Order: sequence, then C-alpha cells, then structure tokens
Amino acid sequence: MNESPLHFTDLSLLVHPKSIALIGASERPDSIGGRTLENLTVWSDFRGELHLVNPGYDNIHGRPCVPSIRDLDQAPDLAILAVRADAVLETLRDCGEHGVKFAIVFTSGFGETGETGKAIEARMREIATSTGMRIYGPNCPGVNNMNARLGLCFSPAWRIDQRPGPIGVATQGGGLGRAFIQGMDRGLGIGLWCSGGNEADLEVSDFIYYMAEAPDIKVIVTTLEGVRNGPRFMAAALHAARLGKPIVALKVGKSAYGAKAAQSHTAAIAGVAAINSAVFRELGIVEVDDIDELIDIASLLSRARPTGREQVAVYSFSGGTAALASDMVGLAGLPLAAFAAQTLQKLRDALPGYAAIDNPVDVTAEVLVNAEVSYATLKATASDPNTDIVLVPIPVEYGKTTALLGESLVKVQREVSTPIVPVWMSDRTGAGHRTIIEGGLMPMRAVGSAVLAVKRFIEYGRWRTRFNNAWTPLGATASHAASLHLSETETKALLAKVGIPVPDGRVARAADEAARIWRDVANGKAVMKIVSASITHKTDMGGVRLGIASESEAMAAFEEIQANGLRLCAAPDVEGVLVEPMLCAPFVEVVVGIHQDPVFGHVCTFGLGGVSIELFKDVSRRLLPRTAQSARQMIEETRCHALLDGFRGQRTYDIDALIDALLKLSDFVTRHADSIGELEINPLAVRPQGCGVVALDAVLCYRERKPGDSPLTPGSID
Amino acid sequence: MNESPLHFTDLSLLVHPKSIALIGASERPDSIGGRTLENLTVWSDFRGELHLVNPGYDNIHGRPCVPSIRDLDQAPDLAILAVRADAVLETLRDCGEHGVKFAIVFTSGFGETGETGKAIEARMREIATSTGMRIYGPNCPGVNNMNARLGLCFSPAWRIDQRPGPIGVATQGGGLGRAFIQGMDRGLGIGLWCSGGNEADLEVSDFIYYMAEAPDIKVIVTTLEGVRNGPRFMAAALHAARLGKPIVALKVGKSAYGAKAAQSHTAAIAGVAAINSAVFRELGIVEVDDIDELIDIASLLSRARPTGREQVAVYSFSGGTAALASDMVGLAGLPLAAFAAQTLQKLRDALPGYAAIDNPVDVTAEVLVNAEVSYATLKATASDPNTDIVLVPIPVEYGKTTALLGESLVKVQREVSTPIVPVWMSDRTGAGHRTIIEGGLMPMRAVGSAVLAVKRFIEYGRWRTRFNNAWTPLGATASHAASLHLSETETKALLAKVGIPVPDGRVARAADEAARIWRDVANGKAVMKIVSASITHKTDMGGVRLGIASESEAMAAFEEIQANGLRLCAAPDVEGVLVEPMLCAPFVEVVVGIHQDPVFGHVCTFGLGGVSIELFKDVSRRLLPRTAQSARQMIEETRCHALLDGFRGQRTYDIDALIDALLKLSDFVTRHADSIGELEINPLAVRPQGCGVVALDAVLCYRERKPGDSPLTPGSID
Repeated sequence: MNESPLHFTDLSLLVHPKSIALIGASERPDSIGGRTLENLTVWSDFRGELHLVNPGYDNIHGRPCVPSIRDLDQAPDLAILAVRADAVLETLRDCGEHGVKFAIVFTSGFGETGETGKAIEARMREIATSTGMRIYGPNCPGVNNMNARLGLCFSPAWRIDQRPGPIGVATQGGGLGRAFIQGMDRGLGIGLWCSGGNEADLEVSDFIYYMAEAPDIKVIVTTLEGVRNGPRFMAAALHAARLGKPIVALKVGKSAYGAKAAQSHTAAIAGVAAINSAVFRELGIVEVDDIDELIDIASLLSRARPTGREQVAVYSFSGGTAALASDMVGLAGLPLAAFAAQTLQKLRDALPGYAAIDNPVDVTAEVLVNAEVSYATLKATASDPNTDIVLVPIPVEYGKTTALLGESLVKVQREVSTPIVPVWMSDRTGAGHRTIIEGGLMPMRAVGSAVLAVKRFIEYGRWRTRFNNAWTPLGATASHAASLHLSETETKALLAKVGIPVPDGRVARAADEAARIWRDVANGKAVMKIVSASITHKTDMGGVRLGIASESEAMAAFEEIQANGLRLCAAPDVEGVLVEPMLCAPFVEVVVGIHQDPVFGHVCTFGLGGVSIELFKDVSRRLLPRTAQSARQMIEETRCHALLDGFRGQRTYDIDALIDALLKLSDFVTRHADSIGELEINPLAVRPQGCGVVALDAVLCYRERKPGDSPLTPGSID
Repeated sequence: MNESPLHFTDLSLLVHPKSIALIGASERPDSIGGRTLENLTVWSDFRGELHLVNPGYDNIHGRPCVPSIRDLDQAPDLAILAVRADAVLETLRDCGEHGVKFAIVFTSGFGETGETGKAIEARMREIATSTGMRIYGPNCPGVNNMNARLGLCFSPAWRIDQRPGPIGVATQGGGLGRAFIQGMDRGLGIGLWCSGGNEADLEVSDFIYYMAEAPDIKVIVTTLEGVRNGPRFMAAALHAARLGKPIVALKVGKSAYGAKAAQSHTAAIAGVAAINSAVFRELGIVEVDDIDELIDIASLLSRARPTGREQVAVYSFSGGTAALASDMVGLAGLPLAAFAAQTLQKLRDALPGYAAIDNPVDVTAEVLVNAEVSYATLKATASDPNTDIVLVPIPVEYGKTTALLGESLVKVQREVSTPIVPVWMSDRTGAGHRTIIEGGLMPMRAVGSAVLAVKRFIEYGRWRTRFNNAWTPLGATASHAASLHLSETETKALLAKVGIPVPDGRVARAADEAARIWRDVANGKAVMKIVSASITHKTDMGGVRLGIASESEAMAAFEEIQANGLRLCAAPDVEGVLVEPMLCAPFVEVVVGIHQDPVFGHVCTFGLGGVSIELFKDVSRRLLPRTAQSARQMIEETRCHALLDGFRGQRTYDIDALIDALLKLSDFVTRHADSIGELEINPLAVRPQGCGVVALDAVLCYRERKPGDSPLTPGSID
C-alpha cells in the first residue's frame, strides 16, 4: 500500500490469554457478569489465572474478588468488561494504564445510540492509542474460541456452541455471525468467532489478519456491513491470500435499501456494491449473498482445496434427482466427469441393467437397501480418475435406504480423498442425516445450493492458479482536493505521450484554419469537435460533427460548432474546434475508465462502448496496477470479448494492443495517483488484429494543488 | 386449440373411489400387496367397499379374498395392481373387460427398462382405449389423497405423510415428488399427490386438469422431465388459469446434461428450455429451479393471493439481518413499504430509541424478551395500511426470545390478513420453530429463498391482472412436410400484402436494368442484394452491397453480385439482384421471428438486432396469436425497450408501429399456420416516433404440399 504502514497488532493474547480479569463479575447467574463467569469457569478449559473484579464482592462462589483492576499486582493479558455504560470509560482507562493488553467491552449504549455514544467511542480510541491497550467492542458478544474451548462471552448458548473446527469467523454484527455459527448443528466445525460490535478500536480486518496466521484456522468467514478502512481491509485479505487461506464474505449493502439499513445499523458506509464485489473478486474473496451460502462454501473449503479444474460426478438413488442435479451442474457451466472404463465396468457389475451408470449415476432406490452395493458403487464413483468432486443429492428421508446410504457416504469418504458432498434435500431428517453430520460430511440443503457452492469452490481454485503473490494494490484513497477537467486535446496529448495512439488532429481557431487542417489531416472524411474544458457533453450541445467531406463543409461546421459553444460558455473557455481524420471501419468501440473509489482507491473499468455498458452493464473492473495477465482476464470477463475475438466467424480485433493500452494507462495513473482522480477513454477504437487501437475521445480529471495549475502536461510526465 | 378435441377424463373416482379391488393383496406385511392393504385398512379412512383379489388366499386377516377380479359381482371403481410384471397385462385386460373404471399399476419393469417394456406399455394403452378403463402407472408410487386420508399406495411412509392442505401435487418421477411432499415436516399442507410413473396412459396433464377443478385444491405443484403432449399440457394449464388456480412447476432439462439425464430417466424429450420457460410464463405457470423453491412459493400461494402490487415490510430483532433482508428486497427490485404515520408512532411508542422503526424494523434482541412488545410491534407492522406482506427473518434459535417471537407471529397472523412470512435462517431449531410450524406459518429457510418466493408471488399477481381469460394458443404442432424457403422478394411481397412496410425496391436481371432501378428508387444511396431462394447467407457469399451512390456503381455492383451468385448456384436459381433505397438513419434494428416449436407450436421471438441477440440473449418469446397488450409486454420485457423508449434522453422510436407489425405478423401466421413453418424479419428497422417500421430483410419457410408449389403468394392470401 502507498499509505502509512498498515500495522496489525498480534491478537494471540486476546484469543489465547494466559490471564484474565473479569470486571463486573457477579454471583447473580442471569447477569452478564454472572453468565460470563459461568462460561469461563464451567464451560471452558481455561487453565490460566482468572481474576474477578467488582467493588461489591469480596469473593464470588469462593473465588477472591478485588475492587479494581489496579488492585492486581500484575496486569492480566485480557480484561473483560461487564460493567454499566457510565463506568466503561474510567474502567478502560484504569486497565490501559495498569498495563492490560486487551479489553473486551460487552456493554452496549454507545455508538449505536447516537452521536453522544460515538463521541465516547472516540475517547475509547484515545485510551487505546495512549496506553497501547487494544479494545474489542463495545456492544459486542465477545470472543468465542471453540478450538481452545474458551468462551470469552456471556451467551448462555456458549455451552452448546462447541463443535471445533478449521473455520474462523470475523463478523460485523452479532446476529448474522451467530446465524452462521449455528451452522454447527448441521455439522460445521468452527474454531474461533470474533465479532467486534461497534469496532471502536479493533475491527474485522484485525481479526482476518490474525486468522490468516492462526495455525488452527484454514478458512476465514466474514460478514460485513461496510469496509471502514479499505487499505487495511485489503492488506488483511492479501495477507490471507498469500498464506493460502480462503476468505468467504457476505457483504450487506448491494441495493439502496440495504445500504441505507446497514448505515442506520452500524453507521458503516456500504460503499459501491459493484466496486466492493470487484475488489473481493480480485483479492480472491469468495463473495456470497446469504448465510446459508456462507455455510455451504465455508464447509466445502474447510474440507478440500480446489485446483480450478474440478470435474463433477453426480450419484443418486432417484433418477429425477440425478437429472435435476446434472441439469444444475450444466446450467452453472461446470463439467460432468467422463468416467473411466474401469469405473463404468465396476458400476455395471454392481447394478441392475435399468440403473444409469454413466454420469449421473442413478443406482435406483431398490438397490440401496443393500449396503454393499451402495458402498461399492459410491466408492467406484468417488475413485474414478476423472472425478474431482462427487455430488450426492438425497431427495428424501427414506428409512433404512437413507440410513445405509449415510453409512456408505461416511465410510467411502474415509477411504478416498475426493470430496463427497451430500445434499439432504428433504425437510424430514432421520438416521441417515445424523450419520452424515456425525461423519463430518456437512450436508447441503438443496441441489441449487450445493451446485452454487461447488461452482464457487472451483472458481476459487481458478483464482488461486492466477494469483500473483507479489501484487499489491495501489490502495490510495481519494483526496478531498477540488477536481478539474483537462480538455479533450490536453488529455489526448497526455495519452499520446504515454504511448496510446490518438487521431492525428489539430485545433482550429477560425473557419479558414479548419479548412486548412481538414486538407492536411482528413482521410476523405473528418470529425470536428468543440474543445473546452468546461463542456463535458459535447454531442448533446451540438459540439460534434461527423463525416465532414470537404473544406467548405469544414468551414460551415466550424461556424456552427463555435456558435453552439458560445451559447454555453464565454469565449475564453472555448479553445477552438478539433479537426481529426475520421477512423475507417471496421473497429469495435470499447470504454476504458479509471476512477478513484473513496474506499479502495483507483479502480479500472473496461467494457463494450455504445449502449452496451448502460443497457447490458457488460463491464469488468480491477484495482490498479494491472499486469498483462490480469488485463487480459479483464477483457475476457466481458461478453465484449466474444465480439473482439472473432464472433460468429468474423474478423478478430487487436486484443494485444488493447492490453498494451490498459497497461500503459495503469502505469501512467499509478505513477501520478496523487494527481489523477479520473481518466476515461470513451470510445477507444479497437481495430483489426495488427492495426492497434485509437483513443477517439478522452477526458482526465485532476486534483488541483494550487489554483489554475494543471499538474499534468506532456512535458511534466516521463 | 386447433387440434382435435382435447379430452380429459374426470378422475374423481380414481381419487375418491367408492369401491376398490386390491389385486395381489397379501398377508405378508413387507410385501407391496401387504403394505398397501395396511395403508388402506389401518392408515386410511376408507368407508367404501374393499375387495381383495389373490388366487393364493381365501381370506387375509379375516377379510374374504377372491382369485380374480372377474369373481366380483360388480366391478369396482378402482383396481390397484400389486402383481408381478408378467401378470400385469392380463390382469389389466380382465379389469378393463370387467368394467373397472381406473387401474393403478405399482409394478415396475416396463418402459424404464427398455424397448420391450415400452412395447408392453403400448399394449396397456390399447387396453385403455378398447375398454375405456384409464390406467395410472406402471412403475408408480400410487395416489396419496391426504385430504380424504386415503392412501392408494404401498409406502410405509404414508402413515406419517399426513398433513392435509390445499396443495395438489402432480409429478413425473416419484423421487422429486416425495422430496416435495416431505415439506410437510416444515408445515406444508398437501391435499393430494399424483405421480403417474411411466405414464403409459394417464399423464401429468390429466392430474393438473383434475386438480384445477378439485374444490379442496388451491395451488397445483408439478415436477416435469418433459412435456409429452404440448397442446394437452397447455389445455390443462389454461383450465387451471381460467379457474384462478396457480400452477408452480419445476422442469428438468434446462441444460444439455439435464436434458440427456431426463431423457435416459423417463424417455421424455426435455424440449428447448427457453421455449418451455416462455410458454410457462405466458400461461402463468410459476417456474422454479429447485425443490426448496417449489415448497416456498407453493406455501405462499396456498396462504394468500397476490395482486401484483405488494409492498414489503421487514421485521427482525437483528439489525444486520434486517439490513440483509432489505438488501435482498432491493436487489430483487421489490418495493419496501413506506409506513403510515400511525404505524411509526405505534412503533416509536413501543420501542427504545436505538431500535430502528422505519422499514426495516429492527426491534433489537433485548426487546423481544417482552412478549407484549413483540406482539404490539409485529401487529403494528402487519397492520400498516401500506404493507402487503411482512418478512420476518429470524437469524438464530435464541431460546426464550425466539419462542416468544414465534408465539407473537402466530397470534398476529390470526388477527391480520396480511401474510407474515417467517424465515428460520438457522440450522438450529427449537420451541419458536415448532410454534411457527404448528401455527400454520411455514418458515422459509433462507432470506434469499424467502425474497425469491415473494418476488414470484408478486409476479404471479402481475400476470393475473394481465391474463386474458379468452385467449387460446394456436398450439398446432409441427408437421413433417418438407420445408422450403421463399426468396427475399417473395417474402417481402407477402409482408407488403399483410401491411408490413418494405423498401420500395425492384429486381434487376441485368446491369443496365439495375442502373434504371437505381435512378427510380435510390434516395441518394441504394442497397443491392442477390435474390435466390437457395441462398440464405447473402452477406457471407458477397451477395450484398451497401451505399450504392450512382448508376455506374449500381451497374458494377450488379455484375459483381451476380458473379458471386453464379459461383454458388445454377443460373435459374438466381432470380436477379434486388435494388432498394437505403434507409436513412436514425432507426433501431430489431429482429422478429416466428417458428414452429415441435412441442408447443408457433412461437414468436422479439429482440434487439445486431450482436445483441447473440451476445446478450436479449429476447422475449410468446405463443401465437398475440394481442396488442401482450405484444407491448413482449417489447417491454427486453432491454431493447429502453433503447426504443428514449434511452438517456434521446429520441423515442415508433413502438406503436412495431406492435402493429407484430400483430399483423401474428394474424398472418395464425391464418396460415398449416403452411408457415418459419418467418423471420431480420432486421426490422424501427424508425422515430410516427415514422413507422420497415422490414429490411425477411425470409419465410413454408411446408410444401405438392412439389414445386408455393402455397403462399400475395394473390393467395386475403
């Protein structure tokens, strides 16, 4: 990142404290302090020192209790605050000054209640800064460390929220976080849940960074309402990516309703959904839309790592279900495996003639009452050399049939590494369902859910193969300096300097000059356009004329365009009229834009020009800087690529030159990130293979440093 | 329908027989015959006559048993066959000849095993035709009549598959049907399940037609692998539509994998997915993609009828969850209700200041431990005059909190008619979950699922308001007569005759004639195109020249085009070269095509021309004939509509003329449905408002009746 160093505190002593002070400990079993005490002493395996702090007790359940944190000889690693809102600030100050390393504040009644509460949170941050103690909360459910069986929380559900596993969960907002962790009841194994409440100090990025390094965590799950600090979030996500740990994210705020609701809930700005999603995709963060989807893909990633080249087998005892699942695999654009001959032979040997053996496998319900047959056929399917993942949709609870199938599933999965994904489609459960969960194969709940999870699993694998470990996003966030436009000719001069071809045009200040330029540059026909930094919509105001075919037409067009211009702005603001040769067909018009997102910094957008961007939203986006490989991917992601790449047997266009232009722009903006707010080439004409590209129109917005000063001229850049 | 009368037998005596013969009754409890006997005598409320037939018994469990159906004095309404495959044909013949009205055949081993089995099914059909007895099966799970508590089935699950209700289920394939009915365990009320197995005689359309009339059925659910008889299916669906009963359908075979698997499973041809979906949409059939989606929308439609103008309220005790749900409502394009002042006041009075009261409502978890508050706030929300449906996403099982919320949900729903839709997002269940199910409010399982169901619910309401009770689709299926092309000029002459404008062009047979025509018709510029019924891709073979600007250019173009034509076909096949005035910009090119689908008959396709159809699949489809209203909808469904209707403040195009052209084409093809296989205008130029449309190119394929005879000429049509 270009910003100041992005520091992440090591949270080991928050998650695994050696000593804890519970401030506000209570003997009342239903109080926050009482419930936390019970969670720590009865429902946890905490072997360190536990100090109780409460001026109202000498001891609680026989444990000594002191009035203040200052009464402890040695500061504990962690203080847990279960105190009234009006005592929180003072208690935090005491803890920080006494040398406590981390404080968890359960107490609510701060930022979520309004401006006064937000001001108090600012003072909490001051305490954190001045003492070095990091604060978790306020208004939070605490830390649930399932892998260490340590409940730094007050929830009465802690005692049952204990199915350890390789998933780390970092959430904004406790409700959705808890919805996710209750996936335990379907077999999800969760090692750690951090939910920082109002995030006065520590935030979701800190937890992600910690989990990226935690040896017991293999998959990181997060729910977000807004990214508070884009560069820190990107740094944490990149850290996880470089360490090979997938992140799965549910981000609220994709629609106007959601953004408004999220803002009213956590005061987080949701950001632009399309940018968020593009950044997630680029960082390898698997984005999902709902809690059940989060559970499904997290479970799958916790069981296996994809290569991106997975082929799918479908195995069922219902023909209709096998057809449905195959249908969805096809609709998702995933490949069904072509079984090897030996697999087909094994299936043929084990099954009656009316069973379907070629992928999908339909063993039929009659067959499954025989445990050996279900084991043998599932084993053959999962061992097939061309099969990388096996979907087993189970349409119904069917007594002995599904009980035996469940046993076969668990048994075969113990013997083969190819992931087997059961789908328990029915609302009725039974022995088979229990066996599958207890055997560690979390069932998905619908065929569509399972196929979506498998698709995301494979796409994550594809992303991994392309991920460049050394790449770091520019990540500079927008300045608040005023933004000014360069004119088309100024922008084109800059583009020419950085190596992006522009038409060979000149600016006419009078009609006869327009005629002269026409004679010099026009290739049969010319384009004439008004030049003014204060006019952005040239066509709408009559500032553009196409197909100028003679000197006299050029003179007439000059008069007309200039008159139209002078109706809109003062004479000094009209630089003149640009006369350019008109580009001969064929070419494809694309749009390349770079703008500065307030959260994530400079983002590049590419898409087909004309009505396609607005009518069909056919665009792709990437952070800067770009590499040749990622520039190519960016083009390939759009449907526009088909058009450039010989659509319907027609000619191919110069994609290499387009990539080269994307890279030159990326490089140019990266080098001048402080000055360039926005740069758009619209259209950029992509000519046939070997003929290059031409920027037909372009505009650049820069940040003004001192009034009237353009920081960028062809002479000022290298 | 234009076909022969589509007859549907009244199935009342199949579903509600007064007398039954169980052939193959057995005292062995695990046999098919034994299990069916137990279902009929122990787990049903059957009060009619039950005759047992089996040559191996005199009596079974004290009931008399006769050797053959012929031994019964009076033929029963229904015979249930639980006999060996090799005895089925003879038994069916006995039943039919003895006067039995319906026969259910459980036995498998017929069409699903191969050609021999299919041949036997053909003989079953012969028995049905010759005796008038209708056959249900073979290879089927029987009829489950929950509303009458009558299990005409052998499943040991029948005893627990008994939550009666207003949903009728007609499935192809038992597995997916049973997956759906197990939705009972989530609170789904199902009145009748018919699943006709191999459908040797009675098929899914018959069950749909029956359920459309059955007074205890309000919603019809179907799963399909292929539509065997398009006109019968459309007739049954239209019957339900006219009687106001919604149909919800899951159709397998949308992808190549699915189509192949479905065909191997039931030998049904999946059909073209896009056509299937378009026909479903036009008939008001709500199409879904998965079993859980089928359950959700069927449940919702069984509880309320939509108007299409529903506004949504979101009520939750978790801010993040409320934000997520609002977000999804927005992404689905649905409106959140703006609460009335009195609703806001009631919420403000009942809730603490930090709760969110404006839609979405977030009462916060603390509040919900008070049953009166949850009741009052939910009641206020559901009673709001602007609210038509209430989504209540419940993120977690949360002990007393969710138990009380469940009670409030059920209580409020008893008092207000606005449907309240709970979403139980968690994999953990408890008292609240049970209360909701027992209270008749089937919970959805994910926010996304619920929003999708609500969206489909509202869209069904919109369809109802537009549905024209009197409309009947053409429904003629394709003949196998040879298909021949008319040339462009012949087709254009027909179009002109039916009132669709075409350019004022003429065919030149020689270069000097081309020059003369150019002088007569060209408006500055002309287009020249080869005319030949045997050339379909004119551009690719050099048969088109644009922008011909002089007589000499016209002569040169003639020579060139004719030479290119003669390289491809014999001189008599080249009619000449068409010279037409070139249409001046601006105009939008659209495509209108009509073709004959083998299952559903003539279908009209509309879309934006150029690359948009193939690159973006921006098309809409409808059956013939069209009405002005539905032609307009067809245009409005595509994104192309935005372009025609003043996109980005630009000009509007002549949509009325486009509608007129669609209607004239529809009328023309409808009157000549036997002859016209396909008619495509590509492009049809839509000119600015008031300037009409022009068919720039067109081709018609007709069915040859006698060799060399074109049945359609401008003189032969009226």
